Amino acid sequence: MASVAHGEEVPNRRVILKRYVTGFPTEDDMEVVSGTARLAVPPGSAAVVLKNLYVSCDPYMRNRMTKHETPSYVPDFVPGEVLVNFGVSRVVASGHPDFKVGDLVWGITGWEEYTLIPNPESFFKINHPELPLSYYTGVLGMTGITAWAGFFDVGKPKKGDYVFVSAASGAVGQIVGQLAKLTGCYVVGSAGSDQKVSLLKTKFGFDEAFNYKKEQDLNGALKRYFPHGIDIYFENVGGPTLDAVLLNMRNHGRIPMCGMISEYNQEQPEGQRNLFQLVAKRVRMEGFMVFDYFGQYRKFEEEMVGHLKERKIAYVEDVVEGLEKAPAALIGLFYGRNVGKQLVAIATE
Amino acid sequence: MASVAHGEEVPNRRVILKRYVTGFPTEDDMEVVSGTARLAVPPGSAAVVLKNLYVSCDPYMRNRMTKHETPSYVPDFVPGEVLVNFGVSRVVASGHPDFKVGDLVWGITGWEEYTLIPNPESFFKINHPELPLSYYTGVLGMTGITAWAGFFDVGKPKKGDYVFVSAASGAVGQIVGQLAKLTGCYVVGSAGSDQKVSLLKTKFGFDEAFNYKKEQDLNGALKRYFPHGIDIYFENVGGPTLDAVLLNMRNHGRIPMCGMISEYNQEQPEGQRNLFQLVAKRVRMEGFMVFDYFGQYRKFEEEMVGHLKERKIAYVEDVVEGLEKAPAALIGLFYGRNVGKQLVAIATE
Repeated sequence: MASVAHGEEVPNRRVILKRYVTGFPTEDDMEVVSGTARLAVPPGSAAVVLKNLYVSCDPYMRNRMTKHETPSYVPDFVPGEVLVNFGVSRVVASGHPDFKVGDLVWGITGWEEYTLIPNPESFFKINHPELPLSYYTGVLGMTGITAWAGFFDVGKPKKGDYVFVSAASGAVGQIVGQLAKLTGCYVVGSAGSDQKVSLLKTKFGFDEAFNYKKEQDLNGALKRYFPHGIDIYFENVGGPTLDAVLLNMRNHGRIPMCGMISEYNQEQPEGQRNLFQLVAKRVRMEGFMVFDYFGQYRKFEEEMVGHLKERKIAYVEDVVEGLEKAPAALIGLFYGRNVGKQLVAIATE
Repeated sequence: MASVAHGEEVPNRRVILKRYVTGFPTEDDMEVVSGTARLAVPPGSAAVVLKNLYVSCDPYMRNRMTKHETPSYVPDFVPGEVLVNFGVSRVVASGHPDFKVGDLVWGITGWEEYTLIPNPESFFKINHPELPLSYYTGVLGMTGITAWAGFFDVGKPKKGDYVFVSAASGAVGQIVGQLAKLTGCYVVGSAGSDQKVSLLKTKFGFDEAFNYKKEQDLNGALKRYFPHGIDIYFENVGGPTLDAVLLNMRNHGRIPMCGMISEYNQEQPEGQRNLFQLVAKRVRMEGFMVFDYFGQYRKFEEEMVGHLKERKIAYVEDVVEGLEKAPAALIGLFYGRNVGKQLVAIATE
């Protein structure tokens, strides 16, 4: 900050969407372009200008790359315009009484170096800068509260419950598994590589874990790991995994529906054929959106900061350095290339 | 009763399962055979002998005709043995202190003229014989409490909710729709014939109804009837209807899963492709079993008897006379031949 004067015009690289996407996105659907930003807010406005330090790569962004005829749950990105998502930023100019220059915040910002936020009131100030700031893109940010709300509020766990987590080493899955262990549950995770499976067992303390790509018969695998069945399935992937899980739920089981990444790039997903199991086993399957839980963010933050400081929760990030690598990092999510929470470091000062 | 002495051996026709079924069942999968019954209970036992007056035909019976490798939620029928289901009966012999000869009861009995029930404690005595006894196979029996529990406990309706009911003129659907109207909801039903659609609008007071067989585009039809979307979908059919409904749910909608009759005869149902909508709209989809609500039966019974006596709820039955017609009546459910609640009158005395 010391290097730029207030109001100065500075270079501003940005990641834009080039075109709407059908099927798997590619790096070429995005473009890193050069522009400029002015480090000042419009006179009389309550805007802030943010210098973006870290931005998060999240699977739900894929949905925003599709052109929807009827509005989706989040607005579509617009070709030619900058991508936006949760990130960690420093305020470098402010017209808002609650935000001052130098404040660290997290919220929805641009995939660019500097972003003008006309109305910053949805941003959270960062209360614990003694922890890595990048954590506020994940375990202390949107993905952390997603895991917490989905597991506790939707999953309604009890001690001793049998819990299955898919995409278990990912941003949300690793937190869910550890919250389940802290609750006294038996936890099994699935992931897409032996490295990730090892991480689940050694770093995150899952009771068991398996590489779903090595299982010919997911139903059989689940029967092996859950001979008594599954009480809670934390759903991140959809597809054949969900269908196999449905055959293995226990009576009165719960399925918090967080995401279905395996289906996001399919125009016609294969679908699920075993929904009758919801009736036969009286299972509750329930979607949720983290946006509905932001009112509980401070409660969540204090709990999670406590777990992190007491080393009761471990956290693994996959950080790429530099905005120009952001498109590849985002694409990598859909191929399972990331190990842990995927994020992009844009600047460190 | 006057005509048979205690302990007498009498002819007893029965409907047996001839073989396990795959795909659509046929009349030939069942057989009406002759046997005998003794109108006495074993000395010292707490059994009762029932004379069966009415038995109910219910879609879930299809599940019991399949041989399951792992146990289903209800036991499989056994080839060569009598079918069983909910019915209305009169006690003609009793060793149980709570049941005396002449008592009218409902519960799970045989598809036969007389049934020995070794342990009758799961039977309910009929409190309101001033209403048609056959009602205890339906609106005052298992299907009534199914509708009541599923709509109120699982569906959690609020006044003004938009409610969609499939198989809406059937045993459960007609009750659900009318309970929804009594709750102040806007109710649309689908059914498989113009006659049924007419019944929904004229007899049961649905706001709108449509013949799903005449709709090329179920999604379009639902958008027409629910321009603001659906708050509660009471699920009776599964298949493409459920998939289309998923595209039309409102935020925080509920889908009580009662049954999926369109899929019961399919070895490989087509399945549902739109489950991501549960996430996007924060929808809860929840299976339930009426067995879990039998503890609340007396509460339900008094409410429903009140509605019936005040003519706030209309009820349409499809009664076939004679046990020999029971197999065809059961099969008819899967072709939508019944208009209203399907049951079999075995005896009237």
